[in-house]
Amino acid sequence: MKKHIVLLPGDGIGPEIMESAKAVLNTVANEHNHEFIFHEHAIGGDAIDRYNHPLPEETIHACEAADAVLLGAVGGKKWDSNPGHLRPEKGLLGIRKALGLFANLRPIKGFNSLLHASPLKEDIITGSDILIIRELTGGLYFGTPSERRENGNVVVDTLYYERHEIERIIDKAFQSAMQRKKQLTSVDKANVLESSRMWREIVDEKASVYPEVKVEHLLVDAAAMKLITQPNHFDVIVTENLFGDILSDEASVLTGSLGMLPSASVRTDGVGLYEPVHGSAPDIAGKGIANPFGMILSAAMMLRHSFGLEQEAVEIERAVNETLEQGYHTADLQLKDGKLASTKKITDAVIENLTT
Amino acid sequence: MKKHIVLLPGDGIGPEIMESAKAVLNTVANEHNHEFIFHEHAIGGDAIDRYNHPLPEETIHACEAADAVLLGAVGGKKWDSNPGHLRPEKGLLGIRKALGLFANLRPIKGFNSLLHASPLKEDIITGSDILIIRELTGGLYFGTPSERRENGNVVVDTLYYERHEIERIIDKAFQSAMQRKKQLTSVDKANVLESSRMWREIVDEKASVYPEVKVEHLLVDAAAMKLITQPNHFDVIVTENLFGDILSDEASVLTGSLGMLPSASVRTDGVGLYEPVHGSAPDIAGKGIANPFGMILSAAMMLRHSFGLEQEAVEIERAVNETLEQGYHTADLQLKDGKLASTKKITDAVIENLTT
Ligand SMILES: CC(C)[C@H](C(=O)O)[C@@H](O)C(=O)O
Ligand SMILES: CC(C)[C@H](C(=O)O)[C@@H](O)C(=O)O
Repeated sequence: MKKHIVLLPGDGIGPEIMESAKAVLNTVANEHNHEFIFHEHAIGGDAIDRYNHPLPEETIHACEAADAVLLGAVGGKKWDSNPGHLRPEKGLLGIRKALGLFANLRPIKGFNSLLHASPLKEDIITGSDILIIRELTGGLYFGTPSERRENGNVVVDTLYYERHEIERIIDKAFQSAMQRKKQLTSVDKANVLESSRMWREIVDEKASVYPEVKVEHLLVDAAAMKLITQPNHFDVIVTENLFGDILSDEASVLTGSLGMLPSASVRTDGVGLYEPVHGSAPDIAGKGIANPFGMILSAAMMLRHSFGLEQEAVEIERAVNETLEQGYHTADLQLKDGKLASTKKITDAVIENLTT
Repeated sequence: MKKHIVLLPGDGIGPEIMESAKAVLNTVANEHNHEFIFHEHAIGGDAIDRYNHPLPEETIHACEAADAVLLGAVGGKKWDSNPGHLRPEKGLLGIRKALGLFANLRPIKGFNSLLHASPLKEDIITGSDILIIRELTGGLYFGTPSERRENGNVVVDTLYYERHEIERIIDKAFQSAMQRKKQLTSVDKANVLESSRMWREIVDEKASVYPEVKVEHLLVDAAAMKLITQPNHFDVIVTENLFGDILSDEASVLTGSLGMLPSASVRTDGVGLYEPVHGSAPDIAGKGIANPFGMILSAAMMLRHSFGLEQEAVEIERAVNETLEQGYHTADLQLKDGKLASTKKITDAVIENLTT
């Protein structure tokens, strides 16, 4: 299989962990006779510094031409006081929108050897295995008007959805549930928002297309509670853009190992952008000590979702697990009797485990 | 002191716990020579059943004429499939708006004897003491347009704020911080929303008026994480209506005793509506086993915030604490070696502790 992959290392630790993902993908290519062709491009603060734009045209074109995109991380204090159009996150929002990546998939599952670091009690977090599906290109993020009025005495943002945008994300959610435990929790604020009432109606309509899936509706405030008190309750959660932003970040700290979590932003034809959930961690950038696991597991998600290479994805996931079991970890992970290791050392160990 | 208090028992366990609050307030009145005059009115599902409206005019008028309002709880499965205008929560949203109760105060502090029931590990939750201040009469809850368009192919909701609405809630937050640990966390989504950018500017403007208060800005997604990983970090949190809805519910489960939490919804002149954070619990309604602590502590908040009766409020809080220490609890509270007791028994114990 021959695939073109755009690499967007971005800011902070992005470039270092991207090297890890690349090395792991090269190993997979060798082992399985694939050809992965990498094209590196600029995004975020790095792109602002070099091209005075968080998302250069050239980057967009390259991504449009690619089979999939890997992203490291964007952002950092350095650009925090820039005007809106010169902010690193504009690059991220822009590429999601430009590529039409409407579905953000966030699997949240703990690693047994790391669960003890969870802020939750062990009996509460054990066994939880959640997939949060967040709508990514609509809602308050992109609705207009979004402006000041009356000399700055009034401000509005607009939560805007078209029916087909809601339908396709709900479809994605049902399809994902079918491949898992067939339980879908749709989160909204239907007691207040008209958009949520329409969302809920569409979920109920689609439910008849997937009769095997058990569907429940949960208000966003109740969902924020239940994620903490009963994370085990959930299988697939689907929700609109901003609720998904909040709930997926909330959920990401439950297992105690944020640095392990991958994410995918996809559309229907398989093209997708894959990135770790953690940020750019500028404080430790360039030191060779960043945790590459989330990035490597994002590459595995790419193999699975964009290229249909399930076996290769599973092999990476198994190799990561073995590496953890061998005790290798970075400073952000608490591993009992573990060996604190560099980004490179961990990457080498994953590759070693992949090839033996 | 002579005060008119409107009681809105509402639905489910509302009437039972309201009886408890009334009994406790009568005791306080006796002990301190106050005169509390109670006026009971309908709201929520109860008002729908009796008057075909979740918020009868008469209830609004009574509340407008009162010095403060106590609310039990609204809602229940019974009315869940009613059309929008006949839903119990419309009563709650309506009375907040009608009285202009723009500031929702949610103190979240654990009770030592109950902390073991927290979903969080003890070392994480111990010592946390948070006041969440939520803007309550603006934002997505009340903005227009909120409608379907193009034959139901498009839906919009509007996040609308006027400058003075943001200013007054930020002022309230700074004033509250001044009475506490002088640390204010303002939560927004300034990297995406124009309303959040204006919110952030206003916080920075007001900061110069309260130089003693240490201010930080936190994105709502980051706040949802930090509440779980470091609840100790926070003193006062201020945020807009919908973020506040989500974060305050998230925070309310952290201490493991949701049933103990009171809340206040106030405006600048001292008039306020006080209600427990928990819901109407229709499954246990009428059995005499509901937890009255949250309602009783809401009455204490009323004495403090609306009537300036700090000493009386503290006495109620002390009496509640003593009652817990004596082991009295309802089924929702896990108390080691406790005595499971009825609503009435617990109320009697609180009153006993108040008078001795
Ligand atoms: C950087 C920011 C705009 C972005 C978002 O809110 O979508 C981030 O929080 C995320 O979740 O990927
Ligand atoms: C019932 C509902 C409309 C209400 C809200 O969202 O404000 C409730 O969740 C609350 O927080 O008091």
